[in-house]
Amino acid sequence: MAVRYELIKICKQTGARLGRLHTPHGTIDTPVFMPVGTQATVKTMSPEELKEMGSGIILSNTYHLFLRPGHEIVKEAGGLHGFINWDRAILTDSGGFQVFSLSDLRKIEEEGVSFRSHLSGQPLFISPEKSIEIQNALGADIIMAFDECPPYPAERRYVRDSMDRTHRWLKRCVGAHQRPEDQALFGIVQGGMYKDLRQESAKQITSVELPGYAIGGLSVGESKDLMYEMLEVTTPLLPQNKPRYLMGVGSPDALVEGVIRGVDMFDCVLPTRIARNGTTMTSQGRVVVRNAKYARDFTPLDPECDCYTCRNYSRAYLRHLIKADETFGIRLTTYHNLYFLLRLMEQIRQAILEDRLQDFRDAFFEKYYGSDENKPRRSF
Amino acid sequence: MAVRYELIKICKQTGARLGRLHTPHGTIDTPVFMPVGTQATVKTMSPEELKEMGSGIILSNTYHLFLRPGHEIVKEAGGLHGFINWDRAILTDSGGFQVFSLSDLRKIEEEGVSFRSHLSGQPLFISPEKSIEIQNALGADIIMAFDECPPYPAERRYVRDSMDRTHRWLKRCVGAHQRPEDQALFGIVQGGMYKDLRQESAKQITSVELPGYAIGGLSVGESKDLMYEMLEVTTPLLPQNKPRYLMGVGSPDALVEGVIRGVDMFDCVLPTRIARNGTTMTSQGRVVVRNAKYARDFTPLDPECDCYTCRNYSRAYLRHLIKADETFGIRLTTYHNLYFLLRLMEQIRQAILEDRLQDFRDAFFEKYYGSDENKPRRSF
Ligand SMILES: [Zn+2]
Ligand SMILES: [Zn+2]
Repeated sequence: MAVRYELIKICKQTGARLGRLHTPHGTIDTPVFMPVGTQATVKTMSPEELKEMGSGIILSNTYHLFLRPGHEIVKEAGGLHGFINWDRAILTDSGGFQVFSLSDLRKIEEEGVSFRSHLSGQPLFISPEKSIEIQNALGADIIMAFDECPPYPAERRYVRDSMDRTHRWLKRCVGAHQRPEDQALFGIVQGGMYKDLRQESAKQITSVELPGYAIGGLSVGESKDLMYEMLEVTTPLLPQNKPRYLMGVGSPDALVEGVIRGVDMFDCVLPTRIARNGTTMTSQGRVVVRNAKYARDFTPLDPECDCYTCRNYSRAYLRHLIKADETFGIRLTTYHNLYFLLRLMEQIRQAILEDRLQDFRDAFFEKYYGSDENKPRRSF
Repeated sequence: MAVRYELIKICKQTGARLGRLHTPHGTIDTPVFMPVGTQATVKTMSPEELKEMGSGIILSNTYHLFLRPGHEIVKEAGGLHGFINWDRAILTDSGGFQVFSLSDLRKIEEEGVSFRSHLSGQPLFISPEKSIEIQNALGADIIMAFDECPPYPAERRYVRDSMDRTHRWLKRCVGAHQRPEDQALFGIVQGGMYKDLRQESAKQITSVELPGYAIGGLSVGESKDLMYEMLEVTTPLLPQNKPRYLMGVGSPDALVEGVIRGVDMFDCVLPTRIARNGTTMTSQGRVVVRNAKYARDFTPLDPECDCYTCRNYSRAYLRHLIKADETFGIRLTTYHNLYFLLRLMEQIRQAILEDRLQDFRDAFFEKYYGSDENKPRRSF
């Protein structure tokens, strides 16, 4: 198998899992946060910067790369690793989520999904087989089954039909996969916000022997409490010896709560996206550095952070750069945000090792969500 | 004096000057190209990257910093060096050029220039004294006299009046300068495209004892041949023991031709500006890497370049990033372009040392401007 999960220990205080993910491009300590490089680049960052901050795995998007530059070009370049000059692990999603969220005029049928490119309007078609073909060409260490992520809210009937199709599609993905020896295919649990459907999906998906399992269809607009409920009925049904990946989740609170509920892997555009308008995550909570009150603040963004940004630049300089639409400002806030989440995961792993993740959670939330710039605990 | 020029040798083949510029923030080998950091950042680059490519001095713009974030804030941050985390030399221009080129509704009077901010529309006023006050607050190693850069073409009468006022303004700049011990004030020769006015201006400006002299009002739309003619009548009148700075010039041909005509310092937004739409300068001439023909070109941007970009990435990847509006693409093309010009200056210095700058020029032009993507020799 391309990827193997090693369970190191379970936190006595919370049941959270400490582990290692062995991939063809290195071993990753879990729980892990994966920065997102949608278009074959983690926005504004160099591979060296990602390594410097300790990132061992990044995510890239099949839908975007299929549209531009095209998976054949990436394949000719030696796959994504060669194309983007990244020798650590990569995960690609299946393209399903973007087909549903970005493209117009989509039509879902048993065979696959017809849609129009959000860039050119060109009519396109992705089936489970096509998604795997593209992902085999991209060559990531972990690839994802082609699924439908139902909207929220959605009728039970719709979610059930969609889920059943996703299960049938998973088998077609397994059948189409040409590189199981160096690419690990993960199945995706769906089921919307219906507990029994979530449980049924978890059973069906894990009935297919795969190197890992993901939980999809969450963080789509529902409350965080509802998301945690869904997690709580799902993760107990996933095998202990396989990694569990909660897709599209990356706010600090959801990372901690997700780990406590047995998740090992996360990805989210949040840290990179909010960085672009000068919003940052710090040990004291959220700091919107473009705000006027930082114009003469010559202290570091986060006094407790030792990242490149915080060691060398002031809030006043960051504010100036962001206000002046200077890319270097976005580089600096992006670097800090990613560093912050990677450090958070490191602290989480240490807390699991020492059986004190609940204590860590309480102290972290107190500090992060206590400040006046951060209203309700769960909205990030 | 804040800055001292040391003449090392003169090229026997061309008369070009090899020298050293000693500043409060390090010694710079000349001839030198100065990357431009308009808004207190060389677009997309970090200070570490600029150092890595060997840049010892960068330029920043008084007009832009006066408008945003304001020179008082920069002063409170410990001056530009502290604000932007750059411990090598900095040069600031006087703001004059931008007042004339960017702002609307300007009114030039003996006292100074009234104009409206191109950002907010706010009415503002800069006099020679105000320009120096701002530059004293910014704290660059080299600061520039407040001058008028006449448009091109311009009537002789207009140029003469403007030039005379620039001379009177120079004396007011000298009188207003509060930090001569750690900031070197350079005067600026004007005179439009009139040889005798250029000569008169050179005499007048150099009659004021200053640590360096600049040549302004060129590269404003005139032909390169005309620019070289103006240089040829000007530089012989400048003192041998002071640096000469040709403002706003940075195409490869003009750098070489400028050095041959006795210039020591150059700055230009060209390498950073063209990088942003994927245009690059390579040993084989200009390469517009966003062009379709590079979609499957997996070779480096410039096979003879050993910069970070060329060592690690392909033209196909650069094209993808630029087409996808990804900042990292601009980082990579910007890095290469600046590296290319800094290497060119290094080669020029070596050629002066070995009395073969004319030979170098001919070989360089043959290779750079010979390729089919580069039409006429003089258009960059
Ligand atoms: Zn930081
Ligand atoms: Zn290069």
